[in-house]
Amino acid sequence: MEQEALTGDALARACAQAMFARDRAAQSLGITIEEAREGYARLAMTIREDMLSGHGIIHGGMTFTLADTAFAYACNSRNVPHVALSVTISFTAPGNLGETLVAEAVEVVSKARTGLYDITVRSSTGTLIGTFRGTCYRIRGTVLP
Amino acid sequence: MEQEALTGDALARACAQAMFARDRAAQSLGITIEEAREGYARLAMTIREDMLSGHGIIHGGMTFTLADTAFAYACNSRNVPHVALSVTISFTAPGNLGETLVAEAVEVVSKARTGLYDITVRSSTGTLIGTFRGTCYRIRGTVLP
Amino acid sequence: MEQEALTGDALARACAQAMFARDRAAQSLGITIEEAREGYARLAMTIREDMLSGHGIIHGGMTFTLADTAFAYACNSRNVPHVALSVTISFTAPGNLGETLVAEAVEVVSKARTGLYDITVRSSTGTLIGTFRGTCYRIRGTVLP
Amino acid sequence: MEQEALTGDALARACAQAMFARDRAAQSLGITIEEAREGYARLAMTIREDMLSGHGIIHGGMTFTLADTAFAYACNSRNVPHVALSVTISFTAPGNLGETLVAEAVEVVSKARTGLYDITVRSSTGTLIGTFRGTCYRIRGTVLP
Repeated sequence: MEQEALTGDALARACAQAMFARDRAAQSLGITIEEAREGYARLAMTIREDMLSGHGIIHGGMTFTLADTAFAYACNSRNVPHVALSVTISFTAPGNLGETLVAEAVEVVSKARTGLYDITVRSSTGTLIGTFRGTCYRIRGTVLP
Repeated sequence: MEQEALTGDALARACAQAMFARDRAAQSLGITIEEAREGYARLAMTIREDMLSGHGIIHGGMTFTLADTAFAYACNSRNVPHVALSVTISFTAPGNLGETLVAEAVEVVSKARTGLYDITVRSSTGTLIGTFRGTCYRIRGTVLP
Repeated sequence: MEQEALTGDALARACAQAMFARDRAAQSLGITIEEAREGYARLAMTIREDMLSGHGIIHGGMTFTLADTAFAYACNSRNVPHVALSVTISFTAPGNLGETLVAEAVEVVSKARTGLYDITVRSSTGTLIGTFRGTCYRIRGTVLP
Repeated sequence: MEQEALTGDALARACAQAMFARDRAAQSLGITIEEAREGYARLAMTIREDMLSGHGIIHGGMTFTLADTAFAYACNSRNVPHVALSVTISFTAPGNLGETLVAEAVEVVSKARTGLYDITVRSSTGTLIGTFRGTCYRIRGTVLP
């Protein structure tokens, strides 16, 4: 595959796949890529026992990790690497053992060196579990090897 | 142990231990409780391979999870259960494989039904990896069984 | 007007008008109510010289104030008073002298004691100036006198 | 005054004064500079009638504006202009008519192109009114003319 020839959504898919291949945390949590496009990513994760908090529901950190991974794949979708600078997450409903959560990341603003993304996490019945807003910052290099 | 007799820091330690005993996510990440006091918690976690992101550094979600766990133990330290409502995290430096991170949660404000906590995550050399500010909300029941 | 008979959008309009009548800050900034509905408010403000920062563009505090006012009117629209607990705002483009900004507040979640609202601030050409997400908390009493 | 010779805290004071001289919003709210140092600013503002919200306490936007101004002067203290990218504010107590609020901005991290600052707003009796955390981004030019 000649990666330099990829553009738009095909480039976004290649970037998401390349990041996922190195993303040990996403792999170990069983996160899967449902869709990757330019400035967009949608990921899924099924809540396992080892993702529960002391309240018996999904640990906020696991909801965050799913959303943060979607954020990463959306803001790295143009083969220009970005890292998270600051993020706000609101927890709106609990997620329960066995449920499959879907995180959808959409681009609000993409500028020369910074970007803003909105990520929602929903249960399979559409309940909003959390809503995440992230600011990212461009770093050197490329996403694809 | 007659739990109803516990107060102050002893109650805080009992609450942190009770939460940790049910906290499958914290257990599976190897998080340990270094100290728990009233309105305060300090936890440690060593960065493993399965905590790395596609950038080869600790996944933001893993840093968040450590901080969020410290937040939970601090804001549940009076045997009155609270859950996170919204959180902002800023990532200030990368964390690398093998490093032990320490999250320290301190209480800013504790009111009848809400609270505000500041959590810092530092490397073993003292570098600030991330800074987390969380708002929590009281729910019914008790932390101790 | 028998206020106890008001419901839905009519109640929301009465609440917004009652709040605005007491809202000295909103009045002094020339903020106007374009629309108020249940869980929703849209306000306008024209950028004056006394709203500029040291960078010669609208002061972030003035953009925030417009958004925060829309937030307040949306989350008080059911005659149940709420106050802001925590808010995150991202500044995405400058606002210039003489421009009229429009803030639109929409409800994400409304629960028994807390709520989450998204507010966007746009210029008259539709440019996103800022995006604001607020968590509010219920207090005692009513909005209408 | 040969501005190119200024360094450290003297440069910070000159930058704060230059920003304030152009900061129409800060002037119109009666904000005063109590102290400006490298990476630090402390400002005061007395709550006037035209700063009150519909709840009869200081409008959240006015508390934000005071904090945001302190943030601006702290993050522009090295004559390298920065603008706010995203900010989170938590409101912890009401401010009342006639009270003088003090905002203190301290630098958490200052990097090549971004910075992180913590700002507290307190009443004259020391009550924490709000706590503000801001991420800023470097722009071109200088602060001093």
